[in-house]
Amino acid sequence: MPRILRIAAAQMGPNQRADERSTILARMIALLDRAADDGAQLVVFPELAFTTFFPRWLLQPEDVDGYFEPAMPNPAVQALFDRAAERRIGFYVGYGELADGRHFNTSVTVGPDGGVLGKYRKVHLPGSVEPRPGDRFQQLEKRYFEYGDLGFPAFWGPKAWHEPVLGMLVCNDRRWPEAWRCYGLQGVELMLMGYNSAAYDPNGGTAENEAIRTFHSTLAVQANAYMNACWAVSVAKAGNEDGSGLIGGSCIVDPNGTVVAQATTLGDEVVVADCDLDACRQGKEKMFNFAAHRRPQYYGAIIDQVGATPPPKPAVSTEERRSA
Amino acid sequence: MPRILRIAAAQMGPNQRADERSTILARMIALLDRAADDGAQLVVFPELAFTTFFPRWLLQPEDVDGYFEPAMPNPAVQALFDRAAERRIGFYVGYGELADGRHFNTSVTVGPDGGVLGKYRKVHLPGSVEPRPGDRFQQLEKRYFEYGDLGFPAFWGPKAWHEPVLGMLVCNDRRWPEAWRCYGLQGVELMLMGYNSAAYDPNGGTAENEAIRTFHSTLAVQANAYMNACWAVSVAKAGNEDGSGLIGGSCIVDPNGTVVAQATTLGDEVVVADCDLDACRQGKEKMFNFAAHRRPQYYGAIIDQVGATPPPKPAVSTEERRSA
Repeated sequence: MPRILRIAAAQMGPNQRADERSTILARMIALLDRAADDGAQLVVFPELAFTTFFPRWLLQPEDVDGYFEPAMPNPAVQALFDRAAERRIGFYVGYGELADGRHFNTSVTVGPDGGVLGKYRKVHLPGSVEPRPGDRFQQLEKRYFEYGDLGFPAFWGPKAWHEPVLGMLVCNDRRWPEAWRCYGLQGVELMLMGYNSAAYDPNGGTAENEAIRTFHSTLAVQANAYMNACWAVSVAKAGNEDGSGLIGGSCIVDPNGTVVAQATTLGDEVVVADCDLDACRQGKEKMFNFAAHRRPQYYGAIIDQVGATPPPKPAVSTEERRSA
Repeated sequence: MPRILRIAAAQMGPNQRADERSTILARMIALLDRAADDGAQLVVFPELAFTTFFPRWLLQPEDVDGYFEPAMPNPAVQALFDRAAERRIGFYVGYGELADGRHFNTSVTVGPDGGVLGKYRKVHLPGSVEPRPGDRFQQLEKRYFEYGDLGFPAFWGPKAWHEPVLGMLVCNDRRWPEAWRCYGLQGVELMLMGYNSAAYDPNGGTAENEAIRTFHSTLAVQANAYMNACWAVSVAKAGNEDGSGLIGGSCIVDPNGTVVAQATTLGDEVVVADCDLDACRQGKEKMFNFAAHRRPQYYGAIIDQVGATPPPKPAVSTEERRSA
């Protein structure tokens, strides 16, 4: 018997800095209602869903904490939790977490009863601590957040969802196969992630545009879902946010790496798919039967070093040797 | 100044068991000539290029060594080496390696002067040791080969190629992000690989067909090239080989994960691309600047365990807790 979970990706259009929290929350509740009306049991919102993507600016220190949530839930988001519990729909949401004075780029997954099932803190923070001189938009996540300190903690979904093994990522994490594999090694069946990804080269330069960055985003999710034999739901905050472009392309991907649903706009949009969790079995039991096929004795460099180190150069090249 | 290397993917149609070695070698030399005529400096041949894909059968023990090369080069392949050196074109080729009685699924890369630049032995052997009862075609690589014991040794290409850092994989390795990352951590700029991939589910069953398996093959190469910011050349032996179907889809992929050239047939076919090795810099210096962004302290599971282990199940589910 298939284990079908109907999932919605709730892409959000931009949150402008001037928007009231109540306005943003009303949009999220409208998206949640749309997902629930479509019969979804789980709806996935973006990274930093309650605010604008503030790491694009160098903020005054006293302005930073205003972008963070002191608890989850809290009065400023309670209406979303209440509506979700009322409709018996779970959700993933990303937010700035302020925990005892520490700042993280965090996500939670909430069950159909309103209880928090799991929490994750973003490990792969992109960007820099110091701003790039002269650039209008920055990528300062390394300035405003600490690196996530929870590792990659998979967790079980409820019986109403057929008890999938769930994992979460946040934005840039989705490009890092190490993160996916750490969940894959826990048998993950469903990966949830939200993102805010610039529609231009976020590290400066002009080498990347909106089309290639949307392609990268989808490609990374497709291949990592395939290579870990899991479903994946990857959801954008998109569009022109405070004058800075964000890609869309929110998608639901099956364990073959096939995109089964994808947003077509840069605004608030819900796409839905019926995800048979047992579709993971083909990959997990055959091609990606890790116990049968992985060879960790040769993977040491993944742990033993951080950056890239080129191999030693031969003292004399083959060509020179031959001509000598 | 761009560092442009013109590379050819030399897809091969099937090698039937009844084909003479001289016939197969003549086809390979014709492909090499076509690549050289197109101005390519490096041509990539498939895995086990000199023979049929024999692991599909349960062989009599005395018949096994006939599919292996006792040395590389050796008289039965010397004509290919000679023509390559004459045309000043390098090549990658996969073959069964017999080394002091040990058997490996091996590849070498040969420089424009005919010298071997690097050797690799396949780490990720698919299939099984024992045949599946009742199946006409098997996948018995674990029976005929030892696991590769050289790790993932990157090496330098010659000055005539602008000295790229090169890496090799063989077939199923391309689906394993650990293998790519071990090369990525050596700054690899160009990954070469050949494959023989069944056009049906090679592990038994009917869940996979030629279309999805070709999609998987290309997807894995695209995403891993992107996530390691390198070029990749992935080359099939394709078509109906001894009654068993092999996918095609040989491709050259850039560091964005974009397919820049792809074979369209299931036969002998050469596709060529000009690969600017400096196109790797965008990824290596920004998004995939490993030194700046990797967090190995959380990747331990990749080394510490082989198979997947699910997370502990909560003793009492949230739902039960709430309803208690």
